[in-house]
Amino acid sequence: MRIAILGGTGNIGKGLALRWGSKHEIIIGSRMRSKAERAAEEYREVLSAVASSRGQVRGAANREAAMAAEIVVIAVPYSAMRELADAIRPVLEDQIVISLVVPMERSNSYLRYRAPPDGSAAMELKRLLPDTVRVVAAFHNLPGEKLRRIDMQLDCDVVVCGDGDAMRVVGALIEEIDDLRVLDGGGLEDSAMVESLTPFLINIAKRNNLSELGIKFV
Amino acid sequence: MRIAILGGTGNIGKGLALRWGSKHEIIIGSRMRSKAERAAEEYREVLSAVASSRGQVRGAANREAAMAAEIVVIAVPYSAMRELADAIRPVLEDQIVISLVVPMERSNSYLRYRAPPDGSAAMELKRLLPDTVRVVAAFHNLPGEKLRRIDMQLDCDVVVCGDGDAMRVVGALIEEIDDLRVLDGGGLEDSAMVESLTPFLINIAKRNNLSELGIKFV
Repeated sequence: MRIAILGGTGNIGKGLALRWGSKHEIIIGSRMRSKAERAAEEYREVLSAVASSRGQVRGAANREAAMAAEIVVIAVPYSAMRELADAIRPVLEDQIVISLVVPMERSNSYLRYRAPPDGSAAMELKRLLPDTVRVVAAFHNLPGEKLRRIDMQLDCDVVVCGDGDAMRVVGALIEEIDDLRVLDGGGLEDSAMVESLTPFLINIAKRNNLSELGIKFV
Repeated sequence: MRIAILGGTGNIGKGLALRWGSKHEIIIGSRMRSKAERAAEEYREVLSAVASSRGQVRGAANREAAMAAEIVVIAVPYSAMRELADAIRPVLEDQIVISLVVPMERSNSYLRYRAPPDGSAAMELKRLLPDTVRVVAAFHNLPGEKLRRIDMQLDCDVVVCGDGDAMRVVGALIEEIDDLRVLDGGGLEDSAMVESLTPFLINIAKRNNLSELGIKFV
């Protein structure tokens, strides 16, 4: 599939690009095309070192990346989400949009989930994008540092919120990544819980001197 | 230690009684003394089958149980919490109270966390009980069915919220149970997140046809 990863220069974006890069056509998106192209070049080199193919990874400006893709992964901070939605809205038709966005704020030394008026970032994104776009929430609770190290086993659960066909497509993409289990987290209106786990995981890691954490239901 | 388990006839209460029963003095509390005594008798029999000693487990009415204990575990449904707090308030002095209470309501076929005005059930309990009592929140996210089967390995994490010494005492009690890891979840004011994980875990299990779930941070 053609997968655009907008905000694809961070850990999670990089991780997804590398782990999907040898099977799919990946378009890294950034506000600055040059930044996206540099990241894509770096990811191709990583892929060529671990896989037989260099993978099809290229860089583009966000809008161009979204226009070219069937799946659009939104991996930007919440503070950049609205501007990004404005930028890509005109080129979106029936893409599946995967939201990784987590609205959170610092409170003393810890993070706190801050639900937007729509209920969650994914719900807000759904409102901001055309009705024909299917929004799915996923990947909020993966440790980015482990995800981007393509040799590391993850053994985490990925809770996905959304509806129908789009859920199945995203579920299949997740299961292509070794040791990730997909769990149905309900409809998009249930996504606040999954988003709110992100600051919780970060805080738990910090309070207990642990490295970046993922989650597993046992 | 002398540990009262109020609401000790449910799965979690039974599980804690059995897993602490050969090392500590356990007082099962219920509104009806006779019900508590019957449960205690049953737990003693289970313990005698798996351990060399029958353990010190007895039953009592809630107030009597709380009065006799150093640690008071509150394992009742949220709907019964206020009445229980009223009943035990007069006999509490400097006990450590462990809240397992989760305020949740049904919404269609799923459960939803319903934060009380105090922020969490544990915060509400703190307000309802004497200032000298130290409230700690823990054990919300353990699978009760597995906990009460004393032969089952748990391999779960227990996130504990509270302050200072009381946290350390409760942490040590948790670590006596095989394969449970204690994690610092912050102060009692952070307990809503841990409480809200309970309906989330129940919903995830239901949506994905899994048995009762615990949580592990990986």
